[in-house]
Amino acid sequence: MSNIHLQTLKGFRDFLPQDKQRRDYFVDKLRQTFEVYGFLPLETPTLEYAELILGKYGTEADKLVYRFTDKGEREVALRYDQTVPTARVLAQYKHELPKFFRRYQIQNVFRAEKPQKGRYREFTQCDIDIFGSSDSLADAEVLATAYAGYVACGFTGIEVRLNDRQVLISHLQPFATEEVKIFDIIQSVDKLDKHTQEEVEAELVSKGLAIESAKGALKSIQTAQSSENLSSIMKLAVSLGVPESALIFTPTLARGLDYYTGMIFEVAIPAYGSGSLGGGGRYDNLIESLGGESTPATGFSFGFDRMIDAALTLGLLSDEMLQRGVMVTIFDDQSVDYSLNVANELRQKGIKVSVYPNCADNLGKQLKYADTVGFDYTVVCGPNEIVEQKAVLKDMKAQSQETLTLPELMDHLSKEYGKTN
Amino acid sequence: MSNIHLQTLKGFRDFLPQDKQRRDYFVDKLRQTFEVYGFLPLETPTLEYAELILGKYGTEADKLVYRFTDKGEREVALRYDQTVPTARVLAQYKHELPKFFRRYQIQNVFRAEKPQKGRYREFTQCDIDIFGSSDSLADAEVLATAYAGYVACGFTGIEVRLNDRQVLISHLQPFATEEVKIFDIIQSVDKLDKHTQEEVEAELVSKGLAIESAKGALKSIQTAQSSENLSSIMKLAVSLGVPESALIFTPTLARGLDYYTGMIFEVAIPAYGSGSLGGGGRYDNLIESLGGESTPATGFSFGFDRMIDAALTLGLLSDEMLQRGVMVTIFDDQSVDYSLNVANELRQKGIKVSVYPNCADNLGKQLKYADTVGFDYTVVCGPNEIVEQKAVLKDMKAQSQETLTLPELMDHLSKEYGKTN
Repeated sequence: MSNIHLQTLKGFRDFLPQDKQRRDYFVDKLRQTFEVYGFLPLETPTLEYAELILGKYGTEADKLVYRFTDKGEREVALRYDQTVPTARVLAQYKHELPKFFRRYQIQNVFRAEKPQKGRYREFTQCDIDIFGSSDSLADAEVLATAYAGYVACGFTGIEVRLNDRQVLISHLQPFATEEVKIFDIIQSVDKLDKHTQEEVEAELVSKGLAIESAKGALKSIQTAQSSENLSSIMKLAVSLGVPESALIFTPTLARGLDYYTGMIFEVAIPAYGSGSLGGGGRYDNLIESLGGESTPATGFSFGFDRMIDAALTLGLLSDEMLQRGVMVTIFDDQSVDYSLNVANELRQKGIKVSVYPNCADNLGKQLKYADTVGFDYTVVCGPNEIVEQKAVLKDMKAQSQETLTLPELMDHLSKEYGKTN
Repeated sequence: MSNIHLQTLKGFRDFLPQDKQRRDYFVDKLRQTFEVYGFLPLETPTLEYAELILGKYGTEADKLVYRFTDKGEREVALRYDQTVPTARVLAQYKHELPKFFRRYQIQNVFRAEKPQKGRYREFTQCDIDIFGSSDSLADAEVLATAYAGYVACGFTGIEVRLNDRQVLISHLQPFATEEVKIFDIIQSVDKLDKHTQEEVEAELVSKGLAIESAKGALKSIQTAQSSENLSSIMKLAVSLGVPESALIFTPTLARGLDYYTGMIFEVAIPAYGSGSLGGGGRYDNLIESLGGESTPATGFSFGFDRMIDAALTLGLLSDEMLQRGVMVTIFDDQSVDYSLNVANELRQKGIKVSVYPNCADNLGKQLKYADTVGFDYTVVCGPNEIVEQKAVLKDMKAQSQETLTLPELMDHLSKEYGKTN
């Protein structure tokens, strides 16, 4: 294009068809899972009054908010997360929403972060939450739904690392001082998955803890037992179908965010790496602190971009999963009508079909195009096929072909693409 | 929430679960259709460089663009439509995209319009286009896909009104004058669906046409015959499965936008009203005029919000279509494990299940909740049922119940919800 930026803004992305299909595939699998687990979808606007968004997560977060003055002189801001708008929804429609509101939300959020590998300024958040229940059954439902979401996306070897905020507090509180608060200790403990024992001890000492206290704190938390609350949640999750072997009590798991009040958990696929592909827990005070009514809440946030990356790395999103479908060629002017009828019949069976959209090109050019684009099959209907009410099916990968009756063609491709209707 | 706007910005909307489910249902049906017709999904960022968006559709449109200066002093703008970003994509990735690029795009766009009934500042656009082919076969493919999209959404009595820009030009050019340009005449002719013959004549006269010319122009266009091009497209569309009776040559159809170069068409459901629920056509010069390379193009834009409104008005999106699913109750502490196992088994069959998330509430309270929320069924597993490995299934609408073995329960609900897996 002439004299304009032929590029997206830094930190923003185009998703061309192959990428977009992969993302849609994951979104579909997650949505299906959420619906089956009784969660309902919610959508909120991209723009909100700025005062709703600002001041909720501190001044550092506020710096990352995209905000501006609109033409009506209103201070507006782009969605920064899905929790604050949901807190607004909970307050605004409280008489319309069920007491136990199970909602999922999959929308893009905007943060003016320094762009770097794996960090974007517009990215997809995918959250499930149950509002209104402080029962451990709600935690177990969230946990089971999260687990089922990863299963539905094709992941295996899923590890759910769990802890209870109360475990951390009861074991680490004795080591906290005036200078080194409990959350300072928790922050360091949380690094034990990526740093050595010695490094974390050194960090605690640098924060002002005596070396004995640092060692004592780590020993205390590393040998901690699960809380009654957490054991109950794990038992309920097993009843809900989560394999017991997938649930790993991890007393050193802290998660950075300090708004959790009970269960905290994260999901990892060790074959991909030690980092988490999503996390969540119970946060009974957050909705009130965001300005809403006191509302117990428990939820989980899928790390959507990391899941895509993990699936690609692990070969889960192979091209086989993304059928390219069939291209129907146009042999000549006399065969157009017949070829289009075949295309239509295949489409009525739910098979993906493109008609080559340029009658003037000869068959060789059409087949070369199909090969370049990567269609699985092409269909050719020449004069002989039309007389015999048949069609030639070319398998573009196997470089083989066969002449089939139309019912055989429908049958063959229906089976190939697993269509039963 | 305390001292903040408990509201969305004017022209912006929350979609609570029922509304969101309806919208998702339509998006899913349209996506499935587009994929089957060989279209591929594309996603572009919400924010772009402002200079990409501005100056493309004139100064009036520019006034409606949401724009601001970001923290890096870049002039940025929110997506105004999906065509301009696609023009950028066509130019930016021209070596990666297929020569005949069939893409669909379903994203929200932003326009600072005066909010009024049915007009929003953030709304969903849903576009299909084929780029790179000037063949009438491409027009027919777009037409057939558009028709199939409305069918998939459950509409009946679909009318496709078609015309060819060339028909308008050849019949109206003789009446154009220095003062009254051909597009002035076309604009008035386009109003014949909503205004009387006399009103349109009067408008043409007020624009400066002699009354005889006004009458002559209307008579000429009203008695026009279809062009060879349009007849060919209609014939191809019939071969692709569009019923001939649905295709209505409408020589007075002009559509407001002046960038169409060939076929123009719109879709209406007369039972809903005379207005269109979507429109499109061929626009061979637009991509170049937007700054791209010369690229023939033909496409269609679904009027998503109007489709939702039409479906609601016509009773197509009844609550029956949106299954509410099953709520599994918790009879007492001893039955938790058994009840959760039942919930899990139902979910593995693809049935939507919520577990009542508060063990402390008695059964009466749980059933009342299920009734309030509107679940189709509840499942109760008390001590007797557990001994007999059964469950009570309550039909909340019929206010009836039956005690079933677990296989019977699975079978009954699988059939009820049409699940075969």
